[in-house]
Amino acid sequence: MDQSEEQINLPELLVINPPPVFIVHQHQFSTKFKLLKAYESPLSTDLFLQTHAQSTKAIICYGKSPITSNILHLLPSLRLVVTASAGFNHIDLLECKQRGIAVVNTGDVLSEDTADTAVGLLIDVLRKISAGDRFVRSGNWVNKVQYPLGSRLGGRHVGIVGLGNIGLKVATRLEAFGCKISYNSRQKKTVPYNFYQNVCELALDCNILVICCTLTVQTHHVIDKDVLKALGKDGILINIARGPIVDEKELVKFLVEGEIAGAGLDVFENEPKVPQELISLDNVVLTPHKAAFTEEAFSDASQIVLANLEAFFSNKPLISPVIDV
Amino acid sequence: MDQSEEQINLPELLVINPPPVFIVHQHQFSTKFKLLKAYESPLSTDLFLQTHAQSTKAIICYGKSPITSNILHLLPSLRLVVTASAGFNHIDLLECKQRGIAVVNTGDVLSEDTADTAVGLLIDVLRKISAGDRFVRSGNWVNKVQYPLGSRLGGRHVGIVGLGNIGLKVATRLEAFGCKISYNSRQKKTVPYNFYQNVCELALDCNILVICCTLTVQTHHVIDKDVLKALGKDGILINIARGPIVDEKELVKFLVEGEIAGAGLDVFENEPKVPQELISLDNVVLTPHKAAFTEEAFSDASQIVLANLEAFFSNKPLISPVIDV
Repeated sequence: MDQSEEQINLPELLVINPPPVFIVHQHQFSTKFKLLKAYESPLSTDLFLQTHAQSTKAIICYGKSPITSNILHLLPSLRLVVTASAGFNHIDLLECKQRGIAVVNTGDVLSEDTADTAVGLLIDVLRKISAGDRFVRSGNWVNKVQYPLGSRLGGRHVGIVGLGNIGLKVATRLEAFGCKISYNSRQKKTVPYNFYQNVCELALDCNILVICCTLTVQTHHVIDKDVLKALGKDGILINIARGPIVDEKELVKFLVEGEIAGAGLDVFENEPKVPQELISLDNVVLTPHKAAFTEEAFSDASQIVLANLEAFFSNKPLISPVIDV
Repeated sequence: MDQSEEQINLPELLVINPPPVFIVHQHQFSTKFKLLKAYESPLSTDLFLQTHAQSTKAIICYGKSPITSNILHLLPSLRLVVTASAGFNHIDLLECKQRGIAVVNTGDVLSEDTADTAVGLLIDVLRKISAGDRFVRSGNWVNKVQYPLGSRLGGRHVGIVGLGNIGLKVATRLEAFGCKISYNSRQKKTVPYNFYQNVCELALDCNILVICCTLTVQTHHVIDKDVLKALGKDGILINIARGPIVDEKELVKFLVEGEIAGAGLDVFENEPKVPQELISLDNVVLTPHKAAFTEEAFSDASQIVLANLEAFFSNKPLISPVIDV
């Protein structure tokens, strides 16, 4: 009996494009589900979806494989959308809700590693670590070229935009470095940090902003010209959340003109395209949307995705629902 | 009255080669001391020292401007050596002691920033931040080249070699990331971390070593082949202390052969020369001995150097003595 025969009695899981977590742990998925892989089919995606329209109850997705109203329309039997990510801005949540489709994400399992990346990017920008590494590799150290001084992290007033799972973890880490923490969030929380209702006021009082919020209609371009101006010439912006939370054109302008001091960016508005102006700057650190990409996080994420799917197919409560039905 | 006339009645401070802290804050030194600058003199250093041998009571130095027994021999009136650094392995302490010369360093003012660099290098190596920055800048992200997963910091067992000012600060920071801390030191300390008398045993139990000890005859090459072997294939070495604490030839071999997982190095055995084999590796982060180089640290260091000099010339107790007389 070959694998496809073995899979016949397994529940079906539709994959339009495979999330990285799914690629790394595919063997675990293939033993538990009959995988309907649109990306390996000679059919167009629409035709593939139509072929499996009546039977498909569950689909797996991620940021670069969005679940649009068009896809939902093509899959009338769909009852579960699983995203192999913490973020879910690529899923049409309203349409899912209206159609009675549950949505689950990876819950909190990626937030430790994402918070670590935020702190890593911040130390890197302040202390010029990547720039120093470039300096050494280029041979300039031997040539006795002077290297500029960095800035101290301790004593800094850090504003966290979005004090959820990740934001809180960034806060506790930065407290250990002697930073003062304030935050902006939809609601005031029971935490020992100052709450700011307005991002611009937060930026005015802080010299570092760390973006940790979800991308929504409300947070789109919330880091705009006014916030960057308030952040000021010694200000540093860290973004490990989503690119479009920041008005990237304005950010580039502020960085190029020296109107803010630096930025650590793991996400961009038009990934994987990164504004060309940033490539030549020494006061920015640019990473390829990998804030949560560790072997351990991928293993944890695959476990929680599998646990959610198994709960769904055995009519048990979902583990990490974004929308429960 | 020009500056040199004004300086006539000021106490003399001899500078063979100017430390970076001195260069940045020179104006403060020049208003308080008559600076005898060997590096600006047409005379040879020996001849310059001989010229000022009878009057010179205080000298300022740093790692790249060592105070050898030869220099001490040429300056019979010398009573104070100030190093504009935390480390003092470039000073012949024994000879100073025998000649009744006091030695002061910058005390604890550089340790916060140095500890931050250690953590920054560690996150960078584990999470491939500098490598990711290179990847983005090279355009490979747009070309859809796959990027390897990093490793989680949380839950790691970190061994700190040398639990002094810097080591303790590295420990408290890494605790906030969920690391387990153990240490090796000359003596057991009253801290909530496991003490290892032997570096090799520490390396065997840990998968990360952070070198924070002073360079002495005892610590020279203390990180040798056996320690690196004990650290193992998933092991990471961070060195923000001094290059010769590590047997660099062995380290390079272990890194090239994949016998340890990576390294974050701010210091090297033959600075500014960095082994060519390291330049092409993606699992190392190389910075130009700048672990404490922030504007704030330089300002603090210059203040403590000045305070020590002023205390010395007014017969008050030294602020941060390494050798008091």
